[in-house]
Amino acid sequence: MVSKKDAISLHKKLNGKIYIESKISKITNENLQLIYTPGVAEVCTEIFKHPETKYELTGKGNNVAIITDGTRILGLGNIGPDAALPVMEGKAVLYRKYGKIDAYPICLATRDKKKIIDVIMSIEPVFGAINLEDIESPKVLDISKEVAKKLSIPVFHDDRHGTAVVVLAALLNSLKIVDKKISKIKVVIAGAGSAGYCIAKLLYFAGCKNIIVLDSKGAIHKKRKINMDKYKMELSGFTNKNEKGQLSDTIKKADVFIGVSGIKGLLKPEMIKEMNEKSIVFALTNPDPEIDPVVAKKFGAQIVATGSFRYENKVNNAIVFPYLMRAILDLKIQKITMEILHTTALAIADSVPKKKLSEKFIIPSINNKTLQQRISRALEKVQR
Amino acid sequence: MVSKKDAISLHKKLNGKIYIESKISKITNENLQLIYTPGVAEVCTEIFKHPETKYELTGKGNNVAIITDGTRILGLGNIGPDAALPVMEGKAVLYRKYGKIDAYPICLATRDKKKIIDVIMSIEPVFGAINLEDIESPKVLDISKEVAKKLSIPVFHDDRHGTAVVVLAALLNSLKIVDKKISKIKVVIAGAGSAGYCIAKLLYFAGCKNIIVLDSKGAIHKKRKINMDKYKMELSGFTNKNEKGQLSDTIKKADVFIGVSGIKGLLKPEMIKEMNEKSIVFALTNPDPEIDPVVAKKFGAQIVATGSFRYENKVNNAIVFPYLMRAILDLKIQKITMEILHTTALAIADSVPKKKLSEKFIIPSINNKTLQQRISRALEKVQR
Repeated sequence: MVSKKDAISLHKKLNGKIYIESKISKITNENLQLIYTPGVAEVCTEIFKHPETKYELTGKGNNVAIITDGTRILGLGNIGPDAALPVMEGKAVLYRKYGKIDAYPICLATRDKKKIIDVIMSIEPVFGAINLEDIESPKVLDISKEVAKKLSIPVFHDDRHGTAVVVLAALLNSLKIVDKKISKIKVVIAGAGSAGYCIAKLLYFAGCKNIIVLDSKGAIHKKRKINMDKYKMELSGFTNKNEKGQLSDTIKKADVFIGVSGIKGLLKPEMIKEMNEKSIVFALTNPDPEIDPVVAKKFGAQIVATGSFRYENKVNNAIVFPYLMRAILDLKIQKITMEILHTTALAIADSVPKKKLSEKFIIPSINNKTLQQRISRALEKVQR
Repeated sequence: MVSKKDAISLHKKLNGKIYIESKISKITNENLQLIYTPGVAEVCTEIFKHPETKYELTGKGNNVAIITDGTRILGLGNIGPDAALPVMEGKAVLYRKYGKIDAYPICLATRDKKKIIDVIMSIEPVFGAINLEDIESPKVLDISKEVAKKLSIPVFHDDRHGTAVVVLAALLNSLKIVDKKISKIKVVIAGAGSAGYCIAKLLYFAGCKNIIVLDSKGAIHKKRKINMDKYKMELSGFTNKNEKGQLSDTIKKADVFIGVSGIKGLLKPEMIKEMNEKSIVFALTNPDPEIDPVVAKKFGAQIVATGSFRYENKVNNAIVFPYLMRAILDLKIQKITMEILHTTALAIADSVPKKKLSEKFIIPSINNKTLQQRISRALEKVQR
């Protein structure tokens, strides 16, 4: 178990988890004339005349901007852009180590939707893709929609896309173990932010027919009046035919609980007893899950996962974003569709060999060497 | 001599001159818990509670944003943010190799002053300093002034500050060779953009009393009505007592020509003959100078310099910005004052040993190992 002290002292020692390095190791007067003045002017002129050459003459095609405003950092909430930077640096480390991607943390000192959109639109020239991160919902959904429409580079929204993919991958493997069909199960999703919204959409796309999404006011359904927005209206169109009430009500006869609520301890142990047999509990809020996984097991859940690397079954989007982004950049994917997310989830699920698949091993390790090839090949077929 | 082909093929091979690397070389499940979930939450919380710790727990203190809108790239003019990226990557390489600084190229797809200011204000949380680069004047002077006032991190404007420093350093050494006093010389500066503006101010600060600045309409003076702005008005307050006309008029009896005009071939060979004896010609426009240095020598200039690494006497701000920025970050300098620029110029000039000083060697090599220590020590005294 890692301690607070360990985390802080490592960060003090590192003083920043990433650095920018030159690809030219030794500067000579000759290469200075090529990479700087006067030679660089030729390269600039070439891009000015033939804009498409920017992808071969600069690093743009491998650069990703990780954009946050610090409003929804992990389960910590709105701690601001300064305190958000350690998470974004951590993501940049994972982008480098698993995706060979140059990811720039961009933490914004504004929460204004229009200003955030303006910044993203403004910095496009340097980047091959945008990664939206830990921005409060539903604002981030508006931002994501608008910039995806306007930009010529893809917009990946990790809390939405990455989380939905890893959840579906883990769920598909879990269903193999408990021998249930996705079309027959009841899934309760606690949390209707970016993650809950997209998990519901992707599960529905994958064939799940009985999904209940809850926010702080309880189950979302068509006739609910309070605390609704266009995204919750959209959810109510394909989820929840007739259930009302809170988690304690809707959890009854559920096969799957998916927690993306940001609320530590939201799922009470006794609620698990109300679930169907062979229940699956994904308590994904970080750093502290909706239920202690040991307790969840003890109270009858057959398969338990968290979003933390502290426990087994690490249902964390870190298994997704570096690899998926690599494929997005390589295959020049412009739009992140449900089909792309579904294909990626299947590829990840399949990377756990049948022999290894067990209640304690539903999702591959982030270090699984086959992940990139599986995802890239699967998406290549979709793109054709 | 480097060729166009060499520059382009090197850039194709590199496909981006910088990359982002992780300071942690091997990711294990244990350090993943420290740098990512759940450990990173402790670090975020620490910064949230004690904002000043962001400088020790993240890379902020060593990160510099190189901001451009692509409107004034080298002498190429407004070629836009895409075509600007190779220059900004080149600067990032020099920041790394000479200043050990993490510099992020940020090329903006907007020329709007207010939007540029908004972006800079928004991205502050990630950076320890801002470097404004190759933005058209006088807009950039307004931007620089406004963000410097509002931001809590220093704003370095390389075209202004860096260029003025290297020019003064080279001039001070040149004057030693021709044995003239700065207080007695007449200096003609062709170009009233960021560089010309700040060179004039710094030379005046250093004791130069007879300075003529010209723009495309000719000599700037108090009574001129056309093509003036507040910065040119400011210049007219301490330069040019009574000269009117073009370069061909004002060059007469000048001791020093400083070209920062962006115009290839602006200085005609015969103009050099109109200058005082032992004339000094700095033709600094890149990639093509105001006069070919060989021709300038042939027509009588005693000391000739360019801004290019192709010729001897490389009066290029690359000799300044990585080292000065290192000192700015280390000494936590908040405001770039004339005193700081003057001190830096003296330190750079002094780094050429008396024995080595000659018409062909007025400025140290960018690889001079004493530069950093000289600049940092000198500025440390100023800061006290």
